Amino acid sequence: MKLATFRSGRRGTTAAVAVGEDTYIPLPYASVGSMLMDNGWREVAEDAASGRKAGAVPLHGAQADLAPLLPAAAKVICCGLNYGDHIQEMGRALPDYPTLFAKYADTLVGASDPIYVHGSDKVDWEAELAVVIGSNLYRVDEDQALAGIAGYTVANDVSMRDWQNRTLQWFQGKAFDATTPLGPVMLTADEAPADFDVYGYVNGEQVQKGNTSTLVFGPARLVAYISQFTMLRPGDVVLTGTPGGVGMGMNPPRFLSDGDVLTTEIPGIGRLENRIYLSSTNDPGTTAPTLSTTSTTKE
Amino acid sequence: MKLATFRSGRRGTTAAVAVGEDTYIPLPYASVGSMLMDNGWREVAEDAASGRKAGAVPLHGAQADLAPLLPAAAKVICCGLNYGDHIQEMGRALPDYPTLFAKYADTLVGASDPIYVHGSDKVDWEAELAVVIGSNLYRVDEDQALAGIAGYTVANDVSMRDWQNRTLQWFQGKAFDATTPLGPVMLTADEAPADFDVYGYVNGEQVQKGNTSTLVFGPARLVAYISQFTMLRPGDVVLTGTPGGVGMGMNPPRFLSDGDVLTTEIPGIGRLENRIYLSSTNDPGTTAPTLSTTSTTKE
Repeated sequence: MKLATFRSGRRGTTAAVAVGEDTYIPLPYASVGSMLMDNGWREVAEDAASGRKAGAVPLHGAQADLAPLLPAAAKVICCGLNYGDHIQEMGRALPDYPTLFAKYADTLVGASDPIYVHGSDKVDWEAELAVVIGSNLYRVDEDQALAGIAGYTVANDVSMRDWQNRTLQWFQGKAFDATTPLGPVMLTADEAPADFDVYGYVNGEQVQKGNTSTLVFGPARLVAYISQFTMLRPGDVVLTGTPGGVGMGMNPPRFLSDGDVLTTEIPGIGRLENRIYLSSTNDPGTTAPTLSTTSTTKE
Repeated sequence: MKLATFRSGRRGTTAAVAVGEDTYIPLPYASVGSMLMDNGWREVAEDAASGRKAGAVPLHGAQADLAPLLPAAAKVICCGLNYGDHIQEMGRALPDYPTLFAKYADTLVGASDPIYVHGSDKVDWEAELAVVIGSNLYRVDEDQALAGIAGYTVANDVSMRDWQNRTLQWFQGKAFDATTPLGPVMLTADEAPADFDVYGYVNGEQVQKGNTSTLVFGPARLVAYISQFTMLRPGDVVLTGTPGGVGMGMNPPRFLSDGDVLTTEIPGIGRLENRIYLSSTNDPGTTAPTLSTTSTTKE
């Protein structure tokens, strides 16, 4: 099953939906995040999906209404340096422990949303598989962690490298509001393959290509590790790190320009397509440019 | 005015209170955090405090019921390396930018709560002044930031140095659930002095002593800086960093032992007193020991 969070007609409100090939079915939850807090979510979603023809709404035209998959995720925990090839391009050794950092839900944007970045001229990409938590997980082992994963989605941990490298801690370069696209859908864990390809594109040119089978810390191991010190709960999300091909690792380094389109794709889940708008003015009243709508959920 | 979050009789519920010399007055909010989300909070609190004799409850005996001041803080953003003397003891140069990292509200505990640490034997202390946000602050200057500070409180950014130093990112050593005491009260900004003394004690022995006048990035500057990339909202909290005297900086390094009492004090605000319980067993069913109640809010 593929589940998404759509923006509804009313300003600021969202709704969880089950996404089919050409249609979607509204679910009685405000988002995939709040859906996961209901123990019975799977039954509700499957019931709705099985009656697809009755409640189904044509998908066409709805793609631009994708909200961040988990608009109110309490924890968005990220792993850096987790693909062998990316670790090598950053000039580092294979790690004994996962490198973890935190961000807040304010960083999240929808799969087709524009990304406005203010005050950085080193905006870089990090295509990632994201793991959506479906149970309370505290001090669990890898088997329990795997059983507690609700599903998988796509993220791009867009990083302001100038801010990230101002100090030893990456947080400030990773925590710009509304710069981390998450979606378009959560593929439920029962339908997930053993591993995923992860692709990143800038203006249609492929810049990143990886496979999660090469993760140093795979989803279950990562979730189990994090659960040793903090409880993960339904609707929390763990970003598993990015494969090689980030702009900072290129020679010379390459960063996103105003107007660039950043595409992040995991075949079998879906695709994020976000246009980047850069502004360096310090005028808080600057009006954001109008987005040219792009379709993204259809594979 | 001094405001606190008390645990009420029913399991898991809390209430905001105004704290006087010997009494407290219940306020119609679930916590100081939810109080700050009401624009009219100051008037409500002052009204309640002015009628102190009517609604007042004796303070004696209530101290052990202190909840974390902001039990559901959406953002707990911390600054490291912010006191000149602490920077020197860590062997680093004075910074151009604040070193920032994030934690989640799950890390917070009350001013008198025991702190249970599982799986670390390098548990260290970091006495800190914490700034409580009272307005929506996004891309503000220092004057606006100062006007948006609701008040000040005391924190100890208890740090698991073994986990903190496993990787380049400190998060995992700073994010253990229920290890960061916050409280006992918020001193409202209108009553705050120009600077605060910050003291840390282990079993009554003073280990840390600093004054916030020596902060590299003071409260307003820090809040203004953070607001350049993320919106701060009422009830969010910013930890301003710790002065010299942490255990890791001692020769030889010194860490907390099972049963130690960690005291964190900012005269004029109040005192945290937390007993440390260490366990290295990997049995999630281990029962936490019973806390010997200690009085802490009285100065």
